[in-house]
Amino acid sequence: MIAVYPGSFDPLTKGHLDIVKRAVTLFDRLVIGVLDNAGKNTLFSLEERIALLREAVGGVQHVEVKGFDGLLVDFMKSNSSRIAIRGMRAVSDFDYEFQMALTNKGLYSEMETVFLVSRGEFTFISSSLVKEIFRLGGNVGELVPDCVVRALSGKFRNR
Amino acid sequence: MIAVYPGSFDPLTKGHLDIVKRAVTLFDRLVIGVLDNAGKNTLFSLEERIALLREAVGGVQHVEVKGFDGLLVDFMKSNSSRIAIRGMRAVSDFDYEFQMALTNKGLYSEMETVFLVSRGEFTFISSSLVKEIFRLGGNVGELVPDCVVRALSGKFRNR
Amino acid sequence: MIAVYPGSFDPLTKGHLDIVKRAVTLFDRLVIGVLDNAGKNTLFSLEERIALLREAVGGVQHVEVKGFDGLLVDFMKSNSSRIAIRGMRAVSDFDYEFQMALTNKGLYSEMETVFLVSRGEFTFISSSLVKEIFRLGGNVGELVPDCVVRALSGKFRNR
Amino acid sequence: MIAVYPGSFDPLTKGHLDIVKRAVTLFDRLVIGVLDNAGKNTLFSLEERIALLREAVGGVQHVEVKGFDGLLVDFMKSNSSRIAIRGMRAVSDFDYEFQMALTNKGLYSEMETVFLVSRGEFTFISSSLVKEIFRLGGNVGELVPDCVVRALSGKFRNR
Amino acid sequence: MIAVYPGSFDPLTKGHLDIVKRAVTLFDRLVIGVLDNAGKNTLFSLEERIALLREAVGGVQHVEVKGFDGLLVDFMKSNSSRIAIRGMRAVSDFDYEFQMALTNKGLYSEMETVFLVSRGEFTFISSSLVKEIFRLGGNVGELVPDCVVRALSGKFRNR
Amino acid sequence: MIAVYPGSFDPLTKGHLDIVKRAVTLFDRLVIGVLDNAGKNTLFSLEERIALLREAVGGVQHVEVKGFDGLLVDFMKSNSSRIAIRGMRAVSDFDYEFQMALTNKGLYSEMETVFLVSRGEFTFISSSLVKEIFRLGGNVGELVPDCVVRALSGKFRNR
Repeated sequence: MIAVYPGSFDPLTKGHLDIVKRAVTLFDRLVIGVLDNAGKNTLFSLEERIALLREAVGGVQHVEVKGFDGLLVDFMKSNSSRIAIRGMRAVSDFDYEFQMALTNKGLYSEMETVFLVSRGEFTFISSSLVKEIFRLGGNVGELVPDCVVRALSGKFRNR
Repeated sequence: MIAVYPGSFDPLTKGHLDIVKRAVTLFDRLVIGVLDNAGKNTLFSLEERIALLREAVGGVQHVEVKGFDGLLVDFMKSNSSRIAIRGMRAVSDFDYEFQMALTNKGLYSEMETVFLVSRGEFTFISSSLVKEIFRLGGNVGELVPDCVVRALSGKFRNR
Repeated sequence: MIAVYPGSFDPLTKGHLDIVKRAVTLFDRLVIGVLDNAGKNTLFSLEERIALLREAVGGVQHVEVKGFDGLLVDFMKSNSSRIAIRGMRAVSDFDYEFQMALTNKGLYSEMETVFLVSRGEFTFISSSLVKEIFRLGGNVGELVPDCVVRALSGKFRNR
Repeated sequence: MIAVYPGSFDPLTKGHLDIVKRAVTLFDRLVIGVLDNAGKNTLFSLEERIALLREAVGGVQHVEVKGFDGLLVDFMKSNSSRIAIRGMRAVSDFDYEFQMALTNKGLYSEMETVFLVSRGEFTFISSSLVKEIFRLGGNVGELVPDCVVRALSGKFRNR
Repeated sequence: MIAVYPGSFDPLTKGHLDIVKRAVTLFDRLVIGVLDNAGKNTLFSLEERIALLREAVGGVQHVEVKGFDGLLVDFMKSNSSRIAIRGMRAVSDFDYEFQMALTNKGLYSEMETVFLVSRGEFTFISSSLVKEIFRLGGNVGELVPDCVVRALSGKFRNR
Repeated sequence: MIAVYPGSFDPLTKGHLDIVKRAVTLFDRLVIGVLDNAGKNTLFSLEERIALLREAVGGVQHVEVKGFDGLLVDFMKSNSSRIAIRGMRAVSDFDYEFQMALTNKGLYSEMETVFLVSRGEFTFISSSLVKEIFRLGGNVGELVPDCVVRALSGKFRNR
């Protein structure tokens, strides 16, 4: 059974990594799908986000990182997967997740969206909060892996 | 991988059945755990609830129905399972589910609570609503399997 | 067009009265349906709740007060109404209202549940809060009509 | 009694149409008010959104489609209406709707905002979701009327 | 400035203790008000709950524990306080707290309800969850102070 | 004890003023921190927002208005404060406030975020709503102090 964990990962947080490590114990293989959301402004390019994920999950077996654009359901079919993983935070746009899960099921009836709950210490991390804190000079070392701290430093230095 | 689907099932609804049928395709075996919530008043006894579930899931492979009391995490360990399934309704006490998932993880760190989203037509069914409508003389044939309709008729006739 | 405003009204609050006065301007006639929720413990009997409503809405044209048990949809049909009025408070179990509205529509497809928003000053009144404050010796004169203040005094004196 | 159903309708969905058809049975006439939200980027121009609505509601009696800018309460007064219709989705920014209803009542005290609940199958449709799915190549034929499918095709082909 | 921290404390949790320790740094004195909610069934008597609190906060300066019945606002006035402290959990009936704060302000206009946010690790503890887990045989040592663990053991042994 | 009340105040509303007047009675001194959110488009410049606040709180003792950029926790430390005040509206992004409070506590462990509840009549005012209504020609005299009405008139005339 192959599961897909889709997201923007702009950037990857320790909350994302926690979901990756737990999801991979539930299914045979995990494909992390990094969305090339062309329309939106991302801090990191698709290539950078993929590279950071690959560095961070390097040691985890049965995990693969790929970029995708278009519909999630098409990416899932092309990876022979019908299981999408989503992390759910206490402070979460639950309604949005619910709407997406039902819409995706309408587009691909065999698809299941499986929600895992973020652990206590990761419950309040979001990528946008990480960027905000870093931009204002705060320390994000407890929120993201080391490779992301370095990437953030490089990114803001170049500005 | 063995998953446990715990609940009161007082009574079983078509929404529960939908979750059973979908969960069983995600994992190797599914144990439906019927809670003997001794403290609470249930309409159906533990034995009746188990019997109704067995009748309703008779045709589904790799599914087993068991009663349990005590902590869910102990029931899971005794069934060699670390995966709990929960159905999530749009109209859901999400906060309660979240609290339980985190508490259970605190009691049994390998445990994962996996949330599946109820399909559109089953989103608004709850066991308590079924009992309320039936008690007031409404038709619940679209909300519960036939065996439950018959059991409700017998239950209220005896009162 | 006849509308029904169902509820327990245990007791009637100024928030309920506000909804009555506004609903009656939207439709030709308003039937206030007082639920004989036999199962639940109410502070006031069905007869007392009906009498208080009749006293309070005595001056409002085109309004009638009736008790009912059984399904709301049956009460509506017997009153040739397909419009149910519900007041919505900021502090509201919105999910519950939504579930009821969809369930009722499933039982009676022509039925419409029409939600009106409680005005600012009435947004936080609930019948249970009124009873709690009165029981503890607080002043509820701004929350309920005078006839209810008198009824509460009589009720608690008799205890 | 004249009711106004205001919105952006960028584009019209089957959920909107469902509200139109039900609202028109509750009041004598329905004016659909299409907001010329000059500030925001819309996919369809005001003229296009009006034309699509007129095509879609062509067969519905007592319905009129008009554009407006400025305050909703001024548009309502100029149409001799004091009733605004809003559809409410399970997945809804309920807080926003509530705030608007109270604010509008503050600006125009006779005004009533009447909320209708979207039916089960339309509960999860939003205009922005329709645009997102279409943009990514998904099929939106079940979410919007045929004329909108054609308009979306033309719009994205021209890009 | 004297603050009051009201509650049922049935039983006291580490989350409550965290709020006590933080509130006492914000104001000159803290009175913990233990509600004698005569109507409700509590596991521990008023005297037991007061004794447990006194044992647990023994080392904290400027804190006093008192029982009260009747309205909170009357208890506050008799303690020359106009500041009520409430802990707020992520998984919280926020609506209920908001309603109480506004109602209390209506009864006593100088009163302020001050909300403090429970720290991450205490966010999901509730007294009822503690009782449920303990009743089912689970370990609550990380959720409540030692004196409460002992009291729970005694309580359930006597049953 | 010095408290900080941070915000954008774009523009100041009567709801903000209400919080200022109440917070100042709870602590010895109040510093209003006006965020120089350089990234976002504000209607009023930092200087204008500070000037409007100074005009509006001119008569209130022990209140000071300052601009700041960077992290809130750094602004607080430089003002020898560890107490942040936030107003909480019924129609509120409660999740966001909670996330910020916990994040800030992670960055500065002695920090306390103290939430005060907006009074009934101010519960539904937000700066963005004020701007929207004014832009569309509505009257905002009941929502903001007079100096803000004048500033809004000047701002929109100059456009």
